[in-house]
Amino acid sequence: MSAYDKLKQLGIELTKPATPAANYLPIKKSGNNIYISGQLSANANGLIKGTMGKDITIEDGQIAAKLCAISIFSQIVHNANIELDDIKSFVKLTILVSSTPEFINHHLVANGASDFIVEILGDKGKHARAAFGVSALPLGAVVEIEAVIEV
Amino acid sequence: MSAYDKLKQLGIELTKPATPAANYLPIKKSGNNIYISGQLSANANGLIKGTMGKDITIEDGQIAAKLCAISIFSQIVHNANIELDDIKSFVKLTILVSSTPEFINHHLVANGASDFIVEILGDKGKHARAAFGVSALPLGAVVEIEAVIEV
Amino acid sequence: MSAYDKLKQLGIELTKPATPAANYLPIKKSGNNIYISGQLSANANGLIKGTMGKDITIEDGQIAAKLCAISIFSQIVHNANIELDDIKSFVKLTILVSSTPEFINHHLVANGASDFIVEILGDKGKHARAAFGVSALPLGAVVEIEAVIEV
Repeated sequence: MSAYDKLKQLGIELTKPATPAANYLPIKKSGNNIYISGQLSANANGLIKGTMGKDITIEDGQIAAKLCAISIFSQIVHNANIELDDIKSFVKLTILVSSTPEFINHHLVANGASDFIVEILGDKGKHARAAFGVSALPLGAVVEIEAVIEV
Repeated sequence: MSAYDKLKQLGIELTKPATPAANYLPIKKSGNNIYISGQLSANANGLIKGTMGKDITIEDGQIAAKLCAISIFSQIVHNANIELDDIKSFVKLTILVSSTPEFINHHLVANGASDFIVEILGDKGKHARAAFGVSALPLGAVVEIEAVIEV
Repeated sequence: MSAYDKLKQLGIELTKPATPAANYLPIKKSGNNIYISGQLSANANGLIKGTMGKDITIEDGQIAAKLCAISIFSQIVHNANIELDDIKSFVKLTILVSSTPEFINHHLVANGASDFIVEILGDKGKHARAAFGVSALPLGAVVEIEAVIEV
């Protein structure tokens, strides 16, 4: 089953992402790698805002991380013009989690993104990653994820 | 107009940066990419210190980010021995903003660097980026930026 | 003297690391680069937990950073199946330090890793790096380090 079919089966549509309102790019190619700018947790209704350890449950944090992964897919398809099945390899994720100093389950939040990417892409979706707590994220988002893929 | 002429017009001189006092390098080449170590916000008078959301305005945060970008240029010219006009592409910026948990305008601070790089380098200066809040930065700096460029 | 002999002289053994319990990889190769996932500060007795500026001294923070570097070496040897002497170059470290907003010596903590890597690998161990404070790390670790190497 193609990545596209798997997404369809899950009822996930990769809508065209908004263009950055500033002097940077959503994706940048360098050699065989594509760097995807930090994607904030958001769905069709807007940003998922909050702080882990304060007002977001682990489950909702994982959903937020999954939404970042969906946005990464959208950037790849719409702005890098690469079909998901043509990705050679997911190289690396950096998972930034807005959290209190007491919260120590950033890795569980990160799994929301890692699990989803591997569910859709299989083995080539397996990546290196780092997850950690940040004091806050742009516009109050609860999760931000940047990625490097190989094409 | 060359990048050098644009800098001159803005009255910006790329002075030779201090050598790191520890066992790391200001720049490291790998293949066609150059990784530039995190540059702290500083001018000729020393570090720009502080915390966004506490004692630094957005405007001053943007100036701090621009100063990091100037330091990145200085590293490229003086330590990688590459003229700005010979940069093939700015690939990625990671913009670390020392900030309180309440501050959510890291992207606006980051624009101080992104806008300046694109002003000097034009389209090839456009980059992927991630910006986020950190609990604090070395020596109390308000902004730190690391970069990957392609030559 | 080989890297292996230097480690032996220091009484450091590179034990096989635990397999990640989630859908990500400890290392991922892309072209000539290997990305090593964020390694938490740990020794044979478990994680080194804490927060710089609160309950960990600079010296103990440096030991924690060195332990992350040892784990990076273990990942390279056991999971990338590359001998330390076959590393072409250490490219980059990202050093995440769990710390209070008042702590500003992340660079000194980072030196615990940078010094050790250069001690073992010599000049080819010299790397670009960024060090900064994070609100917290997975499972309460005090330091997490991710790396990019070239082979």
